[in-house]
Amino acid sequence: MTAAIRIIGIDPGLRRTGWGIIETLGNSLRFIASGTVTSDGDMDLASRLCQLHDGLAEVVHTHQPHEAAVEQTFVNKDAVATLKLGQARGIAMLVPARAGLLVAEYAPNAVKKSVIGVGHGEKQQIHMMVKILMPKAEFKGNDAADALAIAICHAHNRSADRMRKAMAG
Amino acid sequence: MTAAIRIIGIDPGLRRTGWGIIETLGNSLRFIASGTVTSDGDMDLASRLCQLHDGLAEVVHTHQPHEAAVEQTFVNKDAVATLKLGQARGIAMLVPARAGLLVAEYAPNAVKKSVIGVGHGEKQQIHMMVKILMPKAEFKGNDAADALAIAICHAHNRSADRMRKAMAG
Repeated sequence: MTAAIRIIGIDPGLRRTGWGIIETLGNSLRFIASGTVTSDGDMDLASRLCQLHDGLAEVVHTHQPHEAAVEQTFVNKDAVATLKLGQARGIAMLVPARAGLLVAEYAPNAVKKSVIGVGHGEKQQIHMMVKILMPKAEFKGNDAADALAIAICHAHNRSADRMRKAMAG
Repeated sequence: MTAAIRIIGIDPGLRRTGWGIIETLGNSLRFIASGTVTSDGDMDLASRLCQLHDGLAEVVHTHQPHEAAVEQTFVNKDAVATLKLGQARGIAMLVPARAGLLVAEYAPNAVKKSVIGVGHGEKQQIHMMVKILMPKAEFKGNDAADALAIAICHAHNRSADRMRKAMAG
């Protein structure tokens, strides 16, 4: 008897960081919760990073996930935007790591491939597939939906990893 | 009688984050300590961010600075490097902010202008001026020297700010 693994997916952003929590057991996926942590654009950067930290720390504390997955992305043409994203992403990785969780990283293409079967596609398609894969999933806004997709991507990849290891062993 | 203000300057980087602590009282500057927090390049990103976090948190706990200053920089031509730097910078701002410190940000040009009098100049010049401004300063490596320069920049700017406010008031 294997226990369900609870995964938090995080879609980092300085203004809005989406999070989604699912459970995976064998091939089944179960929606647990999702939401968005926001920071106040009128405050200084350090305070905004604190807001993201405290919001995510509360989510991790409340839902007690076992593993984490964070999207690995950057804005190629805009160094200022990439630096901002990096700062938010640093917090998004730090919080679960400090709670003792393994933190996996997935490129946007890997997330799309895992959820809609190909490495490209519209946001809308991803959200539709999240709903098909987990009919009970509830999410408000893109960031929470993307975070759920990242969690699903990790659920798929971690079992593929385990199967490879089992066959090799 | 005014109390000395203790400032931590931080030069963030994923591999090496320099820190320097000084005290300012009126026009005088006093060196307190400096060093470098490193992360292990063989470890995963989340663990490395934890290493930076824990190292900086220990420095803040040990030296109890009142204010913090962090360099504001990015690598314009390399999105991957900028993202990495952003992640380290997120941690460098989070740690003092969570400890209740005000965190100021300074562009590299502002730091140079404050320490060597002009907005451009070699690393070497900055390090020499740090030594001239604080003869007792000890630092090993560029990152700690740069962090001390950032702290000096904040010491200069915060008193200029106070003077402007006093004259306006």
